[in-house]
Amino acid sequence: MRLTILLMDGFTALDIVGGYEVLANVPGTETEFAAQAQGLVWADSRRLALHAWRSFAELSSTDILYVPGGPGVAAALNDNEMIETIRRLHETSTWTVGICNGVELLGRAGLLDGKQVTTNWGCRDRVRAYGAAVNSQRFHRDGKLVTGAGVSASIDAGLFLVQLLRGPELAATLQLGIEYYPAPPLPYRSPEEAPAQSQALIRHNEQNGPRRIKALRPPV
Amino acid sequence: MRLTILLMDGFTALDIVGGYEVLANVPGTETEFAAQAQGLVWADSRRLALHAWRSFAELSSTDILYVPGGPGVAAALNDNEMIETIRRLHETSTWTVGICNGVELLGRAGLLDGKQVTTNWGCRDRVRAYGAAVNSQRFHRDGKLVTGAGVSASIDAGLFLVQLLRGPELAATLQLGIEYYPAPPLPYRSPEEAPAQSQALIRHNEQNGPRRIKALRPPV
Repeated sequence: MRLTILLMDGFTALDIVGGYEVLANVPGTETEFAAQAQGLVWADSRRLALHAWRSFAELSSTDILYVPGGPGVAAALNDNEMIETIRRLHETSTWTVGICNGVELLGRAGLLDGKQVTTNWGCRDRVRAYGAAVNSQRFHRDGKLVTGAGVSASIDAGLFLVQLLRGPELAATLQLGIEYYPAPPLPYRSPEEAPAQSQALIRHNEQNGPRRIKALRPPV
Repeated sequence: MRLTILLMDGFTALDIVGGYEVLANVPGTETEFAAQAQGLVWADSRRLALHAWRSFAELSSTDILYVPGGPGVAAALNDNEMIETIRRLHETSTWTVGICNGVELLGRAGLLDGKQVTTNWGCRDRVRAYGAAVNSQRFHRDGKLVTGAGVSASIDAGLFLVQLLRGPELAATLQLGIEYYPAPPLPYRSPEEAPAQSQALIRHNEQNGPRRIKALRPPV
């Protein structure tokens, strides 16, 4: 089973690693990291870089297509090769996963019309504009589409997909493998419960994300 | 504020990225990834690689020393340069963070004698052997040591440290930024509640981890 994780400049690392950490541990999975060109791809922090060891041109098919989000999505929406790669691989995939605002990329590729999905708390309206019904679940399945809410929801969405792929026994084992028995130190249990000031700050940061990452240079 | 994340061959990616995703977003943080040599460092899957853009020799001091775990810890315990780097940077740090079996590395560096810590569910006895009292909390503080349980506990430990650094308002904001309102799809709420078969499998995998990663070659 092939798991293909697409990287774009300015991704959010936990969007990727939460799902990767469970899906890559499903026995028999071959995981690949792909980007427009082989080499380093820098996260939104400009301090963390993942290595893409496949280029989009090398990809012909996959079993699980995995599209993460981050401030880099704004530019990726206008990147024809990225959008065409998503469309092309989705035609071959058994499952297509979108996390956070990576779900917008699925929309731009024309995969969301009439579908029900979840996405990052801050971009529900933008996803609706692609013809999708958007809910506020942590993860959601519609046909072969599995979508996750923001960033850390990649873990929950990943475990949910493991359950769909191989049943609850393996999902329980992988949940133990990553010791996912969360105990967030803050008491808020949904974006809507977070302090109003936090909501305003995160909305501001997300609006300014694309400009912010342009201004930050990677250290090498 | 400098955050220094140490990488060793065979790290577990979520041990790093969970904590990184909150700590690197504390305003004013300069995050650096360091390893014995600059360049790619491969995770336990041999498919994901992070880029270390500092070598241990370049590091002279830090504010937050961050030591992750993974199957690579077994070899790192016998790596004098890694252990000496931990000892040397801990002397300068305001906070030292150990996640998962990365806590063993703190023990080998002589930092745990008489301390209370948490660690990966599977290596509590090995950590006790360094003179520490080990509890089963998700995160724990003793003086300037902040330790986390396995893998995904890096998120909770990271948010806990943000709270210590800057108070609950910023921690709430960063918790919203990563939408950390977990809803694990499986019902088990502690390692001890996981099915016995899962516990046996994970114990087996963790014992065989160092051998398994030796047998897997990175794709490049």
